[in-house]
Amino acid sequence: MTGRKPRADAAVNRAAVLAAAQDAFAACGPDVALDEIARRANVGPGTVHRHFPSKQALIGAVVLDRLTGLADVAGRLAEAADPGAAFTGFLRQLAGEAAHNRVLSLALGTDLGEEVAAATATLRQRVAVLLGRAQRAGAVRADLDPADLHALIIGIIEAERRLPDSRRGLGVDVLCDGLRERGSARVAKAAGRG
Amino acid sequence: MTGRKPRADAAVNRAAVLAAAQDAFAACGPDVALDEIARRANVGPGTVHRHFPSKQALIGAVVLDRLTGLADVAGRLAEAADPGAAFTGFLRQLAGEAAHNRVLSLALGTDLGEEVAAATATLRQRVAVLLGRAQRAGAVRADLDPADLHALIIGIIEAERRLPDSRRGLGVDVLCDGLRERGSARVAKAAGRG
Repeated sequence: MTGRKPRADAAVNRAAVLAAAQDAFAACGPDVALDEIARRANVGPGTVHRHFPSKQALIGAVVLDRLTGLADVAGRLAEAADPGAAFTGFLRQLAGEAAHNRVLSLALGTDLGEEVAAATATLRQRVAVLLGRAQRAGAVRADLDPADLHALIIGIIEAERRLPDSRRGLGVDVLCDGLRERGSARVAKAAGRG
Repeated sequence: MTGRKPRADAAVNRAAVLAAAQDAFAACGPDVALDEIARRANVGPGTVHRHFPSKQALIGAVVLDRLTGLADVAGRLAEAADPGAAFTGFLRQLAGEAAHNRVLSLALGTDLGEEVAAATATLRQRVAVLLGRAQRAGAVRADLDPADLHALIIGIIEAERRLPDSRRGLGVDVLCDGLRERGSARVAKAAGRG
């Protein structure tokens, strides 16, 4: 008899597979072999299959884990003293994770089942809170709604994935700059259009 | 005997098919049937096939036509008196056309053969000229290179395609705002990072 209970072992193994899968998906994309994930997690292929009966189940679990993590961050930032900095800081984290995690970026744009959809909805709701606070603080242009922001984020993730590593973060920089409420910039633009 | 020469008729028909194909691709995407394009051009299916032996050939011709048109615009704007306005005006036109033209947006991101690649290279070269002029005029952030801009444009086209029609153009607005060189904004950002 070992010191650990079998159920605790299983939980440790599941967490190890999940962490290995995240790294493997980030490095190789969603087509990486389950055997490669088992190798990275230092478990047998049977252990991977026992916890995640299909590739789809594993992808769903990885995405759920990241979405939940991001939603936790967004939830904490909703109390931050500087709503503008909280908003742009969150955008940077979201885009950075998504650019390095093709599976996550896929999930932000497509359908991966009910549980992932619920986690995405929670995340979007919390991002909307951050957006509203930043707008009320005068830090972000007031005409932006959460759906606009979602479309812009997906576009910037696409841009980030096309930038070389040395330029990573430029897309989010440009997005954050472009979303800023700036009295003089608005006036100049309105004049330019007239 | 009619007043028009057969060769002139053929050119007219080819132009009609090309224009109908652009509309059909914009409305229905690249999977639209060649018969639907013939119907829109008011010619028989045989006429479409005579000018464009495959769907791929037709897509290539449509993309080439739009890329050449955009390169012409960029070429003319290289002489514009206000380099900043010329640059942002061109970005608006490019993103607007690409958002409405899924075939064109595909071509900006993927490989469609040598002739299209050459036209894309010409367009990118002319956009680089517009970028350089706008940067020298102090209108666009100086650290951006043409490859960065290309990645950002593709991202913004993706964002525009996800925005509802009522919000079309918001992505380019945000991009143009975000690319502006603004002394005070740079300083504020550098301070925020320190």
